[in-house]
Amino acid sequence: MSDLKSKFVEVYNILKQELLNDPAFEFTDVSRQWVERMLDYNVPGGKLNRGLSVVDSYKLLKEGEELTDDEIFLSSALGWCIEWLQAYFLVLDDIMDGSHTRRGQPCWFRRPKIGMIAVNDGIILRNHIPRILKKHFRGKPYYVDLLDLFNEVEFQTASGQMIDLITTIEGEKDLTKYSLPLHCQIVQYKTAYYSFYLPVACALLMAGKNLDDHIDVKNILIEMGIYFQVQDDYLDCFGTPEVIGKIGTDIEDFKCSWLVVKAMERCNEEQKKLLIENYGKADPACVAKVKELYNTIDLQGAFAEYESASYERLIKSIEAHPNKAIQALLKSFLAKIYKRQK
Amino acid sequence: MSDLKSKFVEVYNILKQELLNDPAFEFTDVSRQWVERMLDYNVPGGKLNRGLSVVDSYKLLKEGEELTDDEIFLSSALGWCIEWLQAYFLVLDDIMDGSHTRRGQPCWFRRPKIGMIAVNDGIILRNHIPRILKKHFRGKPYYVDLLDLFNEVEFQTASGQMIDLITTIEGEKDLTKYSLPLHCQIVQYKTAYYSFYLPVACALLMAGKNLDDHIDVKNILIEMGIYFQVQDDYLDCFGTPEVIGKIGTDIEDFKCSWLVVKAMERCNEEQKKLLIENYGKADPACVAKVKELYNTIDLQGAFAEYESASYERLIKSIEAHPNKAIQALLKSFLAKIYKRQK
Repeated sequence: MSDLKSKFVEVYNILKQELLNDPAFEFTDVSRQWVERMLDYNVPGGKLNRGLSVVDSYKLLKEGEELTDDEIFLSSALGWCIEWLQAYFLVLDDIMDGSHTRRGQPCWFRRPKIGMIAVNDGIILRNHIPRILKKHFRGKPYYVDLLDLFNEVEFQTASGQMIDLITTIEGEKDLTKYSLPLHCQIVQYKTAYYSFYLPVACALLMAGKNLDDHIDVKNILIEMGIYFQVQDDYLDCFGTPEVIGKIGTDIEDFKCSWLVVKAMERCNEEQKKLLIENYGKADPACVAKVKELYNTIDLQGAFAEYESASYERLIKSIEAHPNKAIQALLKSFLAKIYKRQK
Repeated sequence: MSDLKSKFVEVYNILKQELLNDPAFEFTDVSRQWVERMLDYNVPGGKLNRGLSVVDSYKLLKEGEELTDDEIFLSSALGWCIEWLQAYFLVLDDIMDGSHTRRGQPCWFRRPKIGMIAVNDGIILRNHIPRILKKHFRGKPYYVDLLDLFNEVEFQTASGQMIDLITTIEGEKDLTKYSLPLHCQIVQYKTAYYSFYLPVACALLMAGKNLDDHIDVKNILIEMGIYFQVQDDYLDCFGTPEVIGKIGTDIEDFKCSWLVVKAMERCNEEQKKLLIENYGKADPACVAKVKELYNTIDLQGAFAEYESASYERLIKSIEAHPNKAIQALLKSFLAKIYKRQK
């Protein structure tokens, strides 16, 4: 583990202890234990990519200058706020989707004696973010911008989730409603803002920048986030389960995946009919027919085309950016995801 | 309807239109309609007491000075933020409690095609608050204090809800865990902060006050909030259903009500046994036995005693406050709830 990563991981325990002793609430022993168990179960178990990327981004913005302990702590704390935000979304998404497992363990609401209390636990996770921000950033000149940023990004994520939920409502299964612009809108709002823009925006604020002066950076990151999600959709079907760590079920779940949207674009009338008949069914025979069709119309080729076109466009946008440190930052993001297999 | 109330009601439509055209999200027609229907169903249908009390409080702080249109609008907007907060809590609480009706209509999540999407709708309601605050208060000197205030009060409410949920977990039904301090803690955090302190704190901020200088006001309002909830518990059992607008089910639901806590205090061993055997059962015969016991140990008398003692203590605290306008404000709050029948 790199030095920055091990320091990042340590910060979790500090933040947790602070939250468990927050003077704004008189904890009982039972409620303190409840929150601790809930945090340990839901917050630290992911890949930590989003959180770590705040520290990495901040370091790149400082152009090789050594970070002070204080800077490492603060950028880590902001990174953990994003991990908390992610935990909050995942706990509630799993309830809404009726999911069973998450990160290789049962979803939180499926644990004994949790059930619908998980809704409130999600809310608690969300409420921890402003507690962390207040404790460590209240005196900073960018404090109010941080609050605005987290609020706006959460609003966009919830709005993206809303379109996704409305689009997938049971009983209205209608593939012709799925389109590339709709897919792009869901992905942009539901994933790209909080996963790609938010970490960099946090680092920019810490570095004393004004976010309004970096709309171009935002646009590039959103585009990268969309590309990232298209990869996700691709890997769900064509990835190696052992490598991606799960067995994809987007076809069964009638997901508005890039693949099905692209398929609808490429299919002739007969193939369209076959797709409509078989998409969104749990029956493995139906899933197999969809996958066969995906091969027939060469979606792997379509994806390879999309991937290199996205890469070219992103590199071009990045190299047009006037600031070398920001170029380096954006390129490091792109390098992490380009041609990823998991 | 008073002039201020009719103006308050009008502000709802303005805020709604702004939210439906928020540039931070590209609405589709379907998602815009979804949000509008969700707002109309969940936000404006209550008594509006909390929201209106921001306008009333602000007026009293201005000591009879006529409010400008701008002041009426802004204090109403803050009032509506509290109504939005309440709507968010209620939508999610109903899911967690498995409730059936709310304000005389089915709970939002019980409506056709809503279901668990209601979780995200609750999140959307919550996210509307910072959108409203940013649009109308971003330039005000107290903007950051407003954000901190709403964040802290939401955290306290969610924490109170957590203790309430943990305490009532199915399968651990154990009346001896209920006590007056526990009841008081749940009520203080779950209800008093957002229902009593928050409206006045909003008005104080608008009037240019520093909340740290008004801890005494906060303490009085929290005490009033606790008294209010004890009344609620009392009316759930002893109120007139036609007047309070619902049939209480606290006994069936094993609620940590002031009545059962007080009963445990007053019962002899035999009565305690009877209470433990019959509390928290849906069977009407059990409920009747609990109510009969409540009469035997004269809980109505205990409540009358509590009510007048609370009133005396509150009046004394209020009259000890140095500022006459704040005295008037606190007395108007108390007058609205003292000896209420609904």
